[in-house]
Amino acid sequence: MANINTLVQARYGSATTLSLAAGGVEAANPTLATLLQHKSTRNFSAEHLEPGTLEIIVAAGQSAATSSNLQTWSVIAVEDPVRKDKAATLCGNQDFIRQSPLFLVFCADLNRLTNLSEKQQSAGEGLEFTEMFLMASIDASLAAQNASVAAESLGLGTCYVGAARNHSRELAELLQLPQRVIALFGLAVGKPDDTVAASAAVKPRLGQDEVLHRETWSVDSEAQSRHVTKYDATLANFDAQQQRTGALAWTHRSARRVASASSLSGRHILRQVLEERGFNLR
Amino acid sequence: MANINTLVQARYGSATTLSLAAGGVEAANPTLATLLQHKSTRNFSAEHLEPGTLEIIVAAGQSAATSSNLQTWSVIAVEDPVRKDKAATLCGNQDFIRQSPLFLVFCADLNRLTNLSEKQQSAGEGLEFTEMFLMASIDASLAAQNASVAAESLGLGTCYVGAARNHSRELAELLQLPQRVIALFGLAVGKPDDTVAASAAVKPRLGQDEVLHRETWSVDSEAQSRHVTKYDATLANFDAQQQRTGALAWTHRSARRVASASSLSGRHILRQVLEERGFNLR
Repeated sequence: MANINTLVQARYGSATTLSLAAGGVEAANPTLATLLQHKSTRNFSAEHLEPGTLEIIVAAGQSAATSSNLQTWSVIAVEDPVRKDKAATLCGNQDFIRQSPLFLVFCADLNRLTNLSEKQQSAGEGLEFTEMFLMASIDASLAAQNASVAAESLGLGTCYVGAARNHSRELAELLQLPQRVIALFGLAVGKPDDTVAASAAVKPRLGQDEVLHRETWSVDSEAQSRHVTKYDATLANFDAQQQRTGALAWTHRSARRVASASSLSGRHILRQVLEERGFNLR
Repeated sequence: MANINTLVQARYGSATTLSLAAGGVEAANPTLATLLQHKSTRNFSAEHLEPGTLEIIVAAGQSAATSSNLQTWSVIAVEDPVRKDKAATLCGNQDFIRQSPLFLVFCADLNRLTNLSEKQQSAGEGLEFTEMFLMASIDASLAAQNASVAAESLGLGTCYVGAARNHSRELAELLQLPQRVIALFGLAVGKPDDTVAASAAVKPRLGQDEVLHRETWSVDSEAQSRHVTKYDATLANFDAQQQRTGALAWTHRSARRVASASSLSGRHILRQVLEERGFNLR
């Protein structure tokens, strides 16, 4: 049985000073162990998934909370190698998508509610607001995370693919998405290729003192400087352990990632694509 | 050990025809059981949380995937009864928020990246695009779902609070959120009050054939009509079992929920509030 403190320590890097027990119990239950040990899988074996796996994963996804039970999302399961190859090309040309036996594309879906509204002669004006696109994006994300956790509980690996927004227009065409449906991100699913060492370690995150605020916003600029400086060191240490050399500091990588429109890899036109596809964003 | 098919049947209502086994195994592992049995908790006992619970929940949240490891979210933990009461009033005046010992407010956070960029004399122009607000919303949602699952694995109950967007401006003031941080939703956490029967059953969702598409968008308008008509019946049956009478059909409820700007309970101004708070949404 994994110890909670050991798992938390790996998650924050060795410098963490958190000392935790859940109700006095230091052994992580199997769900906590699955959550705390998550790492993205970018190397998949050629093995197919067992029959029923997709359906269980999606049932877990649908079990997540959904705002007002509106269920404003849908998912496309791409398994055909030719289509998966095309999707991979559109999604940052990432080869692990081709390798994975299952590529799930999670979509914000206001199409269903649009159809329901029309059938009832309702204007569905509420669907024209930014709020509803946000609601759909949150619904889809909660579902996807459940799907990812379910897959990991079955011994599978997953990797989210935000690059599904790099060529939103073309991906929507490939998947034949109707109006008011847009791909938010992908999730590659498959058996991890355990012969590849790179996928071995849990990646440390920002210290909890940087992300968790008590009562009100409670991290001032000085504290934040301390936190991110410490995190730069934690990640540098992690990179060294992983024999990854020459990586920029996290603060530099991160600033560079958002430096300009062009550093968004095509996603700077997202708003325009959303409008083309019937999301009004008032 | 719970049987997967029993759990899935409850999730889709008795009419489901899915027959599932994970790798030939019909017993749900503890994580799958936690996921598939989720229900929202709206009645909390007065019990406090064990020390360390908040930290474990947040560590699970931080263990979720995050786009490019940018970690564009933060969470405010409200435990003070006076502040929790004020938050409850702003969040649809829902009493279970007052009852719960812990109210987590998950925020999209581009403030941290703005600060990092400024320190490095980077314009951070990428932060001005809709893409980055979406990324932050997805990051926060993945983290929140992990937090919710972690809480449930510890025997706690949770309820998401989308009504945190009903009075976004006022909630941001209450929590003293800086520019480029906005509350997306709340998550009430606590021990379920098991004496209240209303929280007993798992709520059925839309049939999987309506939500899961194979290869490309594959539900035409006729199929969708069949699916939602069936779901109306499933939910009517569920409501009857729960001794809830007079509820509108799901299709009617849902259409009404998005009928007009005013049916969004104040959230129709979200775009304006986002802009006030420094989200540019280009």
